[in-house]
Amino acid sequence: MTEGPRRLKVVAFGGGHGLAASLRALRHTAPDLDLDITAVVTVGDDGGSSGRLRAERDSLPPGDLRQALAALADEDPFHRRTAELLQYRFAVSGHLDHPGDDRVVDRRDPLAGHTVGNLLLVGLMELLGDPVAALEHAGRLVGARGRVLPMARHAVGIEADVRGADPRRPDETVTVRGQHAVAVTPGHVEAVRLVPPAPPACAAALTAVAEADWLIFGPGSWYTSVLPHLLMPQLAEAIMKSPARRLVTLNLAADIETLGLSAADHLAALHWYLPGLHVDAVLADARWVGDPEPVHRAAQALGARLVLAPVAVADGGPRHDPESLGVALVPVLGAAR
Amino acid sequence: MTEGPRRLKVVAFGGGHGLAASLRALRHTAPDLDLDITAVVTVGDDGGSSGRLRAERDSLPPGDLRQALAALADEDPFHRRTAELLQYRFAVSGHLDHPGDDRVVDRRDPLAGHTVGNLLLVGLMELLGDPVAALEHAGRLVGARGRVLPMARHAVGIEADVRGADPRRPDETVTVRGQHAVAVTPGHVEAVRLVPPAPPACAAALTAVAEADWLIFGPGSWYTSVLPHLLMPQLAEAIMKSPARRLVTLNLAADIETLGLSAADHLAALHWYLPGLHVDAVLADARWVGDPEPVHRAAQALGARLVLAPVAVADGGPRHDPESLGVALVPVLGAAR
Repeated sequence: MTEGPRRLKVVAFGGGHGLAASLRALRHTAPDLDLDITAVVTVGDDGGSSGRLRAERDSLPPGDLRQALAALADEDPFHRRTAELLQYRFAVSGHLDHPGDDRVVDRRDPLAGHTVGNLLLVGLMELLGDPVAALEHAGRLVGARGRVLPMARHAVGIEADVRGADPRRPDETVTVRGQHAVAVTPGHVEAVRLVPPAPPACAAALTAVAEADWLIFGPGSWYTSVLPHLLMPQLAEAIMKSPARRLVTLNLAADIETLGLSAADHLAALHWYLPGLHVDAVLADARWVGDPEPVHRAAQALGARLVLAPVAVADGGPRHDPESLGVALVPVLGAAR
Repeated sequence: MTEGPRRLKVVAFGGGHGLAASLRALRHTAPDLDLDITAVVTVGDDGGSSGRLRAERDSLPPGDLRQALAALADEDPFHRRTAELLQYRFAVSGHLDHPGDDRVVDRRDPLAGHTVGNLLLVGLMELLGDPVAALEHAGRLVGARGRVLPMARHAVGIEADVRGADPRRPDETVTVRGQHAVAVTPGHVEAVRLVPPAPPACAAALTAVAEADWLIFGPGSWYTSVLPHLLMPQLAEAIMKSPARRLVTLNLAADIETLGLSAADHLAALHWYLPGLHVDAVLADARWVGDPEPVHRAAQALGARLVLAPVAVADGGPRHDPESLGVALVPVLGAAR
């Protein structure tokens, strides 16, 4: 009888598409690795469907949680279809009197823009009064191969000092409020913070961090999906104390909020917001990272080795390919300590 | 080895609370009977959450379908909780600027009044483009002990000639349009019809009727939940042709739309709307039915025997107790032909 791989507990931090890509890649490490996956999700979203639900119902913004659940859904037809249902977004129906008028659309077609999963998660959280129990139940609905937790039990506010937020005043630094506004600002983010500054962390997330073998940061919107975890004092403390090894998966291309920020700058930001953070490995795509030297040095400054691997999709787009990223993760996460 | 009971295919027609009570009772016949349950649900609702979704998204009104699914949900904790989630209704949130102003509530809290299940069913029907496939998937989500089908693939319109709909003109007969308006009219319903008069029936429902051992009508709102099935020409034809035996479960007390209608009148209405309908058994509660003689005669006119049994809840309310109704159904449905 051959022995299977040792079960490794991994905690992946992030939000949105970046976290979903990370989770899908982690699933692709099977059967080489036996991973116990926990996603710890940013809860700062205030745009779109999540933003409306947060404002209207005082809810945790559900969108990033839903995307993580869908990424972990079982592959059998029933659960895949259930995940598809959660991801299904209500289009504007064709039955409006005044399709051109936004206010009328809002009144006549109030579901437009919402996903079924967002509505289901908000209902489940209201019904159970506990986001962790709600996410556990939703996870069972999609046969999730892992667990999804919010980084905090209540929505957090995000704001940033941004230079040139108004393109007509490129040298003026102003405060930009809200995750969505920060994510799409054309200016240069000089500092990001939570409002209020020390929201209580989700206890189950703290436990998962304490018991983890690996903590994984990125890919994702750096200021609004990756760094917020480090800005939560309790979570930052748990990360610093955890005996787990740490991996940073770098983005392939800068998004709007990090335009002008190099890969090395991304690593420097981790150090800036959580000084003393030790990182074991940094994973980047050779084709996208540009000159590897500064990245190599920035990784070394965090104590990490730089691993270059082809992890992007084949069509040349700046997106991670779950399978390739999974292949690259196997030797990194499976390496002997 | 003892032989189990023969599997009986039963089709229960109706909508709303009446159908849910019937379905719960049918489940309570186990293990004495082995039933293969199909609910065929009225799709005429145009009030409340269902009415809004029907108007806004051109959807089948989901509320009665959802209630039938919840009634058939498996009893284990996971599926029971999922059913509870489908039934969960969004309350008006406490975060409105102008809670007294209906228009503002609509704009600021568009989910208020909807149930999670209604939204999920509408999304699933849009996603799959097929209400039967959507209901099969939703049935699996709650571990349904049976199947839920709509009587038609598209919403149907219901209207009625009502005498005294306007209490100031008690002798005037006017047309009342819409299931909700008919259900709550204070007048006397003289005739009910579908608009348009011959909507195509759901093919799976026709097959279920053809293959059934028993067809069960009622309890439920007589004009708006029970009779509409008989008003669908294809469904009426299938019912007349089916070799199945037929049971009518009478209501305990009249609801608004049938005030002034006796139990015997309910049976006469079946004959009026589907002349030639043969019924095998009529089940009524002795305590609620009043003088049994006219009911007995009305049943005989349909070819049925009248079965009197205690099927109401113990608190004296005019509601069927699923367990008692189940006990009463066993000898009726299990009787040799």
